[in-house]
Amino acid sequence: MKNWRFVGFDDSFRISSTVSDLKGEKAVIVGCVTSGFYPEGFMVDRIEVDGDDSTDKMIRMVKRSKFHVQLKCIFLSGLTFGGFNIADISRIAEETGIAVVVVMRKKPDFSSIKHALCSANLEDRWLLIEKAGEVFNVGELFIQKAGCTLEEAKKFIRLSVKDAKIPEPLRLAHMVASAIVHGESKRG
Amino acid sequence: MKNWRFVGFDDSFRISSTVSDLKGEKAVIVGCVTSGFYPEGFMVDRIEVDGDDSTDKMIRMVKRSKFHVQLKCIFLSGLTFGGFNIADISRIAEETGIAVVVVMRKKPDFSSIKHALCSANLEDRWLLIEKAGEVFNVGELFIQKAGCTLEEAKKFIRLSVKDAKIPEPLRLAHMVASAIVHGESKRG
Repeated sequence: MKNWRFVGFDDSFRISSTVSDLKGEKAVIVGCVTSGFYPEGFMVDRIEVDGDDSTDKMIRMVKRSKFHVQLKCIFLSGLTFGGFNIADISRIAEETGIAVVVVMRKKPDFSSIKHALCSANLEDRWLLIEKAGEVFNVGELFIQKAGCTLEEAKKFIRLSVKDAKIPEPLRLAHMVASAIVHGESKRG
Repeated sequence: MKNWRFVGFDDSFRISSTVSDLKGEKAVIVGCVTSGFYPEGFMVDRIEVDGDDSTDKMIRMVKRSKFHVQLKCIFLSGLTFGGFNIADISRIAEETGIAVVVVMRKKPDFSSIKHALCSANLEDRWLLIEKAGEVFNVGELFIQKAGCTLEEAKKFIRLSVKDAKIPEPLRLAHMVASAIVHGESKRG
């Protein structure tokens, strides 16, 4: 079987005292394309910390990619990028025509997120969290999904994980984003 | 056998009409660390186009890396980074204590390089090219080396090449540097 192509997005930015101090600053967002778990390409862009451009930027990066038509799944490292720049996963799935799977190592603490959004006067963004739907437990991971069934999401993860717990495109995107911002990546 | 760790360095920068117009501008230099051919980390820094800081920057990146003591070989994508920012491979090998192997897909055209250096009033840098020593043909590649034998260099290449012709750390460093500068990497 020919390997399926995936893309994984993760972000990185410098935190000063609090995230909110950085409002208007830029975070780096990196997409890594793999064939199975073999890295085939990278994309780099910038999004606004606490802004609302992460969804549009990821849609644009995917659509512009030379690999667009071959991608089977878009993995996200969480729903939130650059602080509270929250991804609208159903819109990403609709506008790209590709399944979206959010992969988290821990079960998200929604009450803390809701409290933090309210404290930052961003309670309207809670709707995007709710819209992302149910959190499913898959092995040691927690996922949300759009544009695919739970069984399909499990298959995408199985075909993209190598020696780590998370899909390779996410592991690599994390390392590259971190290296761009901090000079050297943290351990993947 | 436990996989050996390698690092590969490649650069990218925007070319306007000629490279020399960019003197003083910055090029991106990326290091990718692999265990065999499995990517384990990235480093990102900047060097001056047509400057003379590539050697010092790579030495510093290697020495600062959490993987420093485990690295068996430093692969370079060529002798020249950021235009005519030429690497002194024997100094890199001496100061890091790690073998250096320059990997090229084509045999370097030294007469053209010498002519270009003279045209740019950088003829003193020709000494670094000469100092890098003999070019050896290894399979479809051409290499120069410092701090190791030809047999060791061949082994480093054999243990770091996967599906591509060049070592994985170089292929990945190339893609990431290109994505940082151009938004999306060229094919690896």
